[in-house]
Amino acid sequence: MIRKEALETLAELQKKMYAYGVAMASLTLDADTVAPKDTAEGRGVALGILAGESHKLFANKEVGDLLAELDAAKDELDPTVRRQVEVLKRDYDRMSRVPAEEYMEYAMLRNQSGDVWHKAKEKSDFAMFAPVLEKLIACTRKFAAYYDSTKAPYDALLNEYERGINMEYLDSFFASLRERIVPLIHEISKKPQPDDSFLKKEYPIAKQREFSDYLMDVIGLDRSHCTIGETEHPFTLNFNNKDVRITTHYKEHDVSASMYSVIHESGHAMYELGVSDDLQYTCLAGGMTMGTHESQSRFYENLIGRSLPFIQAIFPKIVEFFPEQLEGVTAEQFYLAVNRAEPSLIRTEADELTYPLHIMIRYEIEKQLFGGTLEVKDIPETWNRLYKEYLGVDVPDGKHGCLQDSHWSGAMFGYFPSYALGSAYGAQMLRNMEKDFDVWDAVGNGNLAPVSAWLREKIHKYGGAKESAELVRSACGGAFDPTVYADYLVEKYSKLYGVEM
Amino acid sequence: MIRKEALETLAELQKKMYAYGVAMASLTLDADTVAPKDTAEGRGVALGILAGESHKLFANKEVGDLLAELDAAKDELDPTVRRQVEVLKRDYDRMSRVPAEEYMEYAMLRNQSGDVWHKAKEKSDFAMFAPVLEKLIACTRKFAAYYDSTKAPYDALLNEYERGINMEYLDSFFASLRERIVPLIHEISKKPQPDDSFLKKEYPIAKQREFSDYLMDVIGLDRSHCTIGETEHPFTLNFNNKDVRITTHYKEHDVSASMYSVIHESGHAMYELGVSDDLQYTCLAGGMTMGTHESQSRFYENLIGRSLPFIQAIFPKIVEFFPEQLEGVTAEQFYLAVNRAEPSLIRTEADELTYPLHIMIRYEIEKQLFGGTLEVKDIPETWNRLYKEYLGVDVPDGKHGCLQDSHWSGAMFGYFPSYALGSAYGAQMLRNMEKDFDVWDAVGNGNLAPVSAWLREKIHKYGGAKESAELVRSACGGAFDPTVYADYLVEKYSKLYGVEM
Repeated sequence: MIRKEALETLAELQKKMYAYGVAMASLTLDADTVAPKDTAEGRGVALGILAGESHKLFANKEVGDLLAELDAAKDELDPTVRRQVEVLKRDYDRMSRVPAEEYMEYAMLRNQSGDVWHKAKEKSDFAMFAPVLEKLIACTRKFAAYYDSTKAPYDALLNEYERGINMEYLDSFFASLRERIVPLIHEISKKPQPDDSFLKKEYPIAKQREFSDYLMDVIGLDRSHCTIGETEHPFTLNFNNKDVRITTHYKEHDVSASMYSVIHESGHAMYELGVSDDLQYTCLAGGMTMGTHESQSRFYENLIGRSLPFIQAIFPKIVEFFPEQLEGVTAEQFYLAVNRAEPSLIRTEADELTYPLHIMIRYEIEKQLFGGTLEVKDIPETWNRLYKEYLGVDVPDGKHGCLQDSHWSGAMFGYFPSYALGSAYGAQMLRNMEKDFDVWDAVGNGNLAPVSAWLREKIHKYGGAKESAELVRSACGGAFDPTVYADYLVEKYSKLYGVEM
Repeated sequence: MIRKEALETLAELQKKMYAYGVAMASLTLDADTVAPKDTAEGRGVALGILAGESHKLFANKEVGDLLAELDAAKDELDPTVRRQVEVLKRDYDRMSRVPAEEYMEYAMLRNQSGDVWHKAKEKSDFAMFAPVLEKLIACTRKFAAYYDSTKAPYDALLNEYERGINMEYLDSFFASLRERIVPLIHEISKKPQPDDSFLKKEYPIAKQREFSDYLMDVIGLDRSHCTIGETEHPFTLNFNNKDVRITTHYKEHDVSASMYSVIHESGHAMYELGVSDDLQYTCLAGGMTMGTHESQSRFYENLIGRSLPFIQAIFPKIVEFFPEQLEGVTAEQFYLAVNRAEPSLIRTEADELTYPLHIMIRYEIEKQLFGGTLEVKDIPETWNRLYKEYLGVDVPDGKHGCLQDSHWSGAMFGYFPSYALGSAYGAQMLRNMEKDFDVWDAVGNGNLAPVSAWLREKIHKYGGAKESAELVRSACGGAFDPTVYADYLVEKYSKLYGVEM
């Protein structure tokens, strides 16, 4: 017999954790958008305390007892509450192993290191960032043991971002992918490149802002629940399923940079806005894995956004925004230009085909850092060597090399593989979606409503109510099969470049 | 003998309260600036919980015991800690009378009512706002009793914003002021008005934004610790003495609107940024009264910002920003235009001379609302009658009448008199400052550094470490004397309009 009070306490607890999450998210959003430059210290004090309070709220014996009580009676719980108990218990068992001071220390460290990384990146000075990075890694290694001491540290971290994933799995995933795309990239390199000079003309930022609004409308975002801001690095932040923010970064001489980051972040936002109302203010409201999240963002960005039917559908409108810049350019030429595949230095600007190689390099380095076979001071050398080996490019400096991503400064070690996994999930979901309705007829008419309805039904609405593996299986129409992604890339790019593989 | 742990607990408690304050401020700032339109609900849930948690943190027996212990040994405490104990004990005694649920309810009600007020104002529909306002008043009345049940409710509220102030005091303050300025306004109305048409030309907002940056520089704000944003109603928000935000509202056809709101908010910001470092993360870091705060903002806005020497100093620069709009205009003409005194409808746009009358009307209405002699439904009629009686103007609709200010929707009853008091404090501080150095020589050279150094030394650095009355006495160089303010207004405006009083 389940006590009514136990269920109420469970709901209350989750609501409080939501409130702390919102508070910390708001401070972070502020820091990244409008906060004055030299304000990290005072914000760090506040964030450290809020993280500590939120931790104490959860990691205490009463919560442990409550979860044990509900877990013991789990067969009587309704499925959503049962899942909440399952997720919270998993978190509890893990979190209760983290001393409150260490938790706060970790939060403050991550908050401060963003600033150091920023300055180091600006100056391309890795030595400036190295001491902080060492601390971050040491701290994260300790946390990895708290998460799961039976696993190798990096496996424990990978499991945080995509449950069930480990190095063995990823080694094979990346190997099979590399085997297919490296020869393709090699063949493509012999072919002439499509002209993309019109993308690099002057695109006034005020006009690009209007264009972003249009793109968000096309994706189907309800603007009364989602705004767009501007940050150095684009991101999506959700407060709840009625309040999501995306950001972008405009470049005056590259219209596609912001165009595709807006579509990418809109994919994340669609996910968060699509979560069922009845999961709000619970741990299931935002409990998706990074892999499933990236499957949605990269679905919109690449599978839809860089497809010919989509470009054809919106091209007349793009020309309305930028008539001079695109004079004489056809939809097909625009399509070729935004799909130009070419080894490059910056991950976020990489094309769909070479992108996974950027991920593999980061994966390799993180694996070695946590495996103890690479020291922080040697990161630049290894980074540069791998870029030469995998992509054939010479890294000129830290800004265009190992200092380019913010992830490490936020201690998000183990996150990067989610991007590649997400892309692979997405490709398979698309194959499955195509069985249900004529995707390309809808997209070709600029109508993404059936696409988002399908994704909402198969994925979004569940929030964290299902395990990622289950979600992926159901949306993919079967077990996850990475060859679908490789097939998709090979098919798309051999056709684009007229290459036989 | 004071326990070391007691002092540590006291510091810890204040740091936590700082963190909750920062969290709530961040959410509020977000709501007022960039949040999507329909997001009040989820934010309200979070704000309600954070307010409740912050309340629980403070209003519990352990804190009461701690404060009692320290209070008993207050002679052994260092002065700053002694003052912290004094302020916290006063708050504790008051807060511990408020049940946690009522505290949360009040916070949520205030959060929701902003939205309703906004919509009602847009539609000039007072009936739409009335039910919420009734709830707000009922709730605030209960809180007034929690604050001080020995006082009349409105006296208890006034005391919240400016300690020691009550209706008797204000009745006499306002009466003496009215006696001096109403005849002056009457005399002025017979005189021709200076031309201010050049202020109403088209001033592009992008240019006004640059002008704001310039003004903040002139005032002496360190921009690495203070940013400016845009909101419907300008305000200043402080996180700590290294992180302050001001906002403004640009009007394309009124350059002086934003100009003076930027200077006003900069005055608030100078105060917050001037608080001593050793008061940070304690209850004294931001514990100033509204009266002292307004004394600073209105000091910069009116006493300095609308003075002839200041205008003469910055006018060449103003012309650089707006050469076409100000072609043929002299500094003296600009000075006359920004000091044009004329009865009007909107408080925030009122000139320095008629401004106090706007305050008196609000004071009168609040007094009657809490005195039980005025019902909410009758506010519009009373408001319109008093505007006719005091200012001689006809109120056309709610937007230009009793729905114009946001204060009531935030339950800030008793706040308005601080504006008038602050102006009066400021006038007397200026007289005292003039004894110490040649204020107008510095201002005339566009050098506000000695002014801000003086204010910092006399007022800012103390934060909440001194009672308002003590601060005011010391900065005014003697007991507060409202006739100084009346003298200042009469002197300035008789000269401006060539009137003999």
